[in-house]
Amino acid sequence: MTPLLLATGNPGKVRELRPVLAAHGFVVVGQKERGIASIEETGTTFVENALLKARHAARQSGMAALAEDSGLCVPFLQGSPGLYSARYAGPESDDTANNAKLLATLAGVRGCARAAHYVCCMVFLDSLADPAPLVAQGFWRGRIGVRPVGRGGFGYDPLFWPEGGKRSAAQLNPAEKNRDSHRARALRRLLELLAERQEPQPLSLRD
Amino acid sequence: MTPLLLATGNPGKVRELRPVLAAHGFVVVGQKERGIASIEETGTTFVENALLKARHAARQSGMAALAEDSGLCVPFLQGSPGLYSARYAGPESDDTANNAKLLATLAGVRGCARAAHYVCCMVFLDSLADPAPLVAQGFWRGRIGVRPVGRGGFGYDPLFWPEGGKRSAAQLNPAEKNRDSHRARALRRLLELLAERQEPQPLSLRD
Repeated sequence: MTPLLLATGNPGKVRELRPVLAAHGFVVVGQKERGIASIEETGTTFVENALLKARHAARQSGMAALAEDSGLCVPFLQGSPGLYSARYAGPESDDTANNAKLLATLAGVRGCARAAHYVCCMVFLDSLADPAPLVAQGFWRGRIGVRPVGRGGFGYDPLFWPEGGKRSAAQLNPAEKNRDSHRARALRRLLELLAERQEPQPLSLRD
Repeated sequence: MTPLLLATGNPGKVRELRPVLAAHGFVVVGQKERGIASIEETGTTFVENALLKARHAARQSGMAALAEDSGLCVPFLQGSPGLYSARYAGPESDDTANNAKLLATLAGVRGCARAAHYVCCMVFLDSLADPAPLVAQGFWRGRIGVRPVGRGGFGYDPLFWPEGGKRSAAQLNPAEKNRDSHRARALRRLLELLAERQEPQPLSLRD
């Protein structure tokens, strides 16, 4: 088993990813368990922010690191809230304030212009010197509703109606969300890349 | 059809990608056709170099841009030639010199320590302001042989023996290479991400 630092301050994400990554040979350690503070996200893209967080975690811990950055993009709003999804209504804003701002910004906007997608970008770094960190993305397409619906999930889930469904993301149960979400899709791609890159086991100890 | 700037000075790559991307609604324009010079690759990872090249191409052309960065990594050599695959034996080196240097560096090294993988990282940028460029990677695993074999391909192909095969990459025909290579795998993932992110077509003009 290889130790892996999960670069997130969110214990929910650590709990969610630990069993999945254990099945692939990794012992997941949370950033808080190691007393590592989070780093400022100064990138201009999700992938650069994820890379920043993974490098910080690898540098502080000396371990392999996995980081992710995610958000909601509305093409009609030139990709906003985008990188600022968690602080859309201000630096100290919460989900309720962010949802209210998005609803107000889209007031009177109809049809296709309310299309949106969640995006998740994961970066897996073997070490600080790794020239080929694994980068895996996932998208989840939908529309922005006209009022918050549902009590599950987090972020913009009460406003996000996944394509092809009749419920908001906040009305899905965890199993449904773990199958369809941007994060679930990114994670599936990450596991595929890990397998694709992994060297085969030696046939014998002497090989 | 959407115009797409392909950020490469290699006309072979333009020829190869043009029909594939045309089937997905893109008219591929080569960087040389627009008189755009290449940019220095100062990143420390493949993904950062691909991002650099895509941004430069988008800035110079005002178009969406697709860039890639690729190379060969030997874990026993801490990932070398890695980012320096094209200039391993020196700034003006060619494939023959690079292959000779790799063989000399691995002289006397046996078995699993000769394991290697090719890596390709593609970045697709809608515009300079795009916070979520598509990032797609592919790996191709194999071993480094003890002498160059085969006349096809380029780069380290005469030394690279793909896992599970009995021929070097330079002995594969183009169809085989376009099915198995790191570049082929990255391109398949890119097309998958494009489809995953793409908004569905409106049901009617009024929608």
